[in-house]
Amino acid sequence: MRDLIEMGIMAKEASVETAKLSTPQKNKLLLNAAQALLDNMDTVLLANKEDVDNAIAGGIKGAFIDRLTLDKSRIEGMAGGLRQVASLPDPIGEVLSMNTMDNGLIIGKKRVPMGVIGIIFEARPNVTADAFGLCLKAGSATILRGGKEALKTNMAIVEIFRNSIKSQGYSEDIVQILEDTSRETAKQMMQLKGYIDVLIPRGGSGLIQSVVNNSTIPVIETGTGNCHVFVDKSAKLDDAINIVINAKTQRPGVCNACESLFVHESIADTFIPMVSKALMAKNVEIRGDKNFVEKVDGVVPATEEDWGTEYEDYIISARVVKNVDEAIELIRRYSTHHSECIVTEDYTNAQKFLNEVDSACVYVNASTRFTDGEQFGFGAEIGISTQKLHARGPMGLKELTTTKYIIYGSGQIRE
Amino acid sequence: MRDLIEMGIMAKEASVETAKLSTPQKNKLLLNAAQALLDNMDTVLLANKEDVDNAIAGGIKGAFIDRLTLDKSRIEGMAGGLRQVASLPDPIGEVLSMNTMDNGLIIGKKRVPMGVIGIIFEARPNVTADAFGLCLKAGSATILRGGKEALKTNMAIVEIFRNSIKSQGYSEDIVQILEDTSRETAKQMMQLKGYIDVLIPRGGSGLIQSVVNNSTIPVIETGTGNCHVFVDKSAKLDDAINIVINAKTQRPGVCNACESLFVHESIADTFIPMVSKALMAKNVEIRGDKNFVEKVDGVVPATEEDWGTEYEDYIISARVVKNVDEAIELIRRYSTHHSECIVTEDYTNAQKFLNEVDSACVYVNASTRFTDGEQFGFGAEIGISTQKLHARGPMGLKELTTTKYIIYGSGQIRE
Repeated sequence: MRDLIEMGIMAKEASVETAKLSTPQKNKLLLNAAQALLDNMDTVLLANKEDVDNAIAGGIKGAFIDRLTLDKSRIEGMAGGLRQVASLPDPIGEVLSMNTMDNGLIIGKKRVPMGVIGIIFEARPNVTADAFGLCLKAGSATILRGGKEALKTNMAIVEIFRNSIKSQGYSEDIVQILEDTSRETAKQMMQLKGYIDVLIPRGGSGLIQSVVNNSTIPVIETGTGNCHVFVDKSAKLDDAINIVINAKTQRPGVCNACESLFVHESIADTFIPMVSKALMAKNVEIRGDKNFVEKVDGVVPATEEDWGTEYEDYIISARVVKNVDEAIELIRRYSTHHSECIVTEDYTNAQKFLNEVDSACVYVNASTRFTDGEQFGFGAEIGISTQKLHARGPMGLKELTTTKYIIYGSGQIRE
Repeated sequence: MRDLIEMGIMAKEASVETAKLSTPQKNKLLLNAAQALLDNMDTVLLANKEDVDNAIAGGIKGAFIDRLTLDKSRIEGMAGGLRQVASLPDPIGEVLSMNTMDNGLIIGKKRVPMGVIGIIFEARPNVTADAFGLCLKAGSATILRGGKEALKTNMAIVEIFRNSIKSQGYSEDIVQILEDTSRETAKQMMQLKGYIDVLIPRGGSGLIQSVVNNSTIPVIETGTGNCHVFVDKSAKLDDAINIVINAKTQRPGVCNACESLFVHESIADTFIPMVSKALMAKNVEIRGDKNFVEKVDGVVPATEEDWGTEYEDYIISARVVKNVDEAIELIRRYSTHHSECIVTEDYTNAQKFLNEVDSACVYVNASTRFTDGEQFGFGAEIGISTQKLHARGPMGLKELTTTKYIIYGSGQIRE
């Protein structure tokens, strides 16, 4: 196995090449990688079967196994994802501004590749293809470190990409994967400053916290989401029910699902029974404040811990608030600053909520489930940033780039 | 003394207020802070005298004492800086995009404040006023940690600002300073995740390295600069001399000064004696490769270490290169990715250099000394970023902000 420094050096060298690739060259590499994946489907499925069998033998079950398992249609989905990335506009080369200064200097700001992007993720093989595709289209080389349970699958996929790239005369080190999935090696990867330009963790909060704490490389933190829906006094109650049900139950295991419901006190008597009935019909457990507990049979009393919990499950915390200000204050206290929604017909409250809630995505009268690169029109996403630096909210191709200043002079010196 | 968590909580609360301030309110706070600084000049000078006396008694001398020492004109300069920031356009509230999606959702991307910005800097009291002013105009609260030698001065300045803010009815915790300047406390500050949204170190490479290694908060690394000038075969030699002399000697102690000179082999015989004579006339020590050593008396032979050294002094490393490709490759190897320049009349080489040199600012035919927020038209700068995340190159007010998505719906749910 290559050691990490060597991988870093190879990635840096490959990144010089990827940065120079034209849009058609990158697109061809992506389309050929997609085709290679389909042509070698059996190899991937075989490797994946080994991974899945090992995981099951190791006592792992449920959603984890589902995410780990590939079949024909999932591999076709991965290939389709690569084709879609090929069809997206190339972010590289865009000139964001160009100004002539008084001294005649022409100063331009241009979108350029990051260089080498490190992605640390869990046992979800689809991330392997996604991350490779997006990073390549953004002009960067990639070093991947996936979850150990998916190692054979990931290595098979990466090997297919590398062979495809190499057969076209380019450096296969555009994409590399760590064969050693120990925590120790992951930590070493987080210290590859000078070789990796940005590190993006994708996964649960434990993984993300470990990267944030250990990395000396700049990190884009992707998101845990304790998302809130606040139903204001003036809300259209049918819309409110639709939004709460959609935000909670359309896909409860994801970061943009609603975890906490706030209801304005003036509509508590009417709305609490309505929304509770609708939630319970979808098998959602409600952990409520005393208002909910008193008004609805079967509501579990919420503990302080519930208000800060991202369930990612058919559970919701729920409480009554006095007004929009209390809703905003509680969101400030408990939110992970991902996505929050107000359901209201009150203009001033809508504007106040939009202005004062300090989250990546703030909604009026729409489900928090829309926080997603495709829904935002980016075509694809590498994750959802919950930090304020560099990118906030869904990250598409542009968020995987940086800029540089290019300055055209004619002999200017500084006085 | 307040403990750090308490400072973090107070800063977060104050930041809610600063985020809501109108442009005129912020400008008034800045102008009044400038006036308060002038009105209380004696207090600052007295505190500064104590700091300077202590530093001298402690055996510190030279440029360090110069940077630490305030006088009337320097304090007027600080007040002038605050007035200038007041005169700059407010970055907050700008809507960068707003699109209506097929489902009727209107998705806007809006520039908003960071929240709380932490600044860690060395014994330069002017940074105290600069950082406060820029962060406030950008809608954020600030926690400052300055060098221990300037503590009394910094505390006097911050106290004046806090009193001025408080007397106008706002929270004085818009700006706070650490009274404990121990390394241990600095490290604790770097772990104030959840309270500080971004940390900006300003100072030498030791300070910056310490922040990068210890911080769990996102960091903007500001720059050490091992900047290069490459004089190509086709360069106008007079321009080349002017640019090299300006980049090296106009202010050698700063990060955008040239540290390394590359000369195309075809012009070595003519240009090396010319440029060496000009550099030596300015008392610049040349550490050269064998070409320089052979052609010019008094050139010191360069060691491998010289090529990677940021002298910040009247010293330059110098060598001959075969062509623009070798220049680009050597820059890739030794540069800190701050600012690099090609002097050339060759169109293709100019474009190649601009495209392939991976630095924050890449120049054709102009001095690297222009890498500066004011020179770039930002009005003021908080530092020069040499990282690729969030901001690259000179950072003005916009680089001290983040964005959020605001989404106007009418009941949309995700299918």
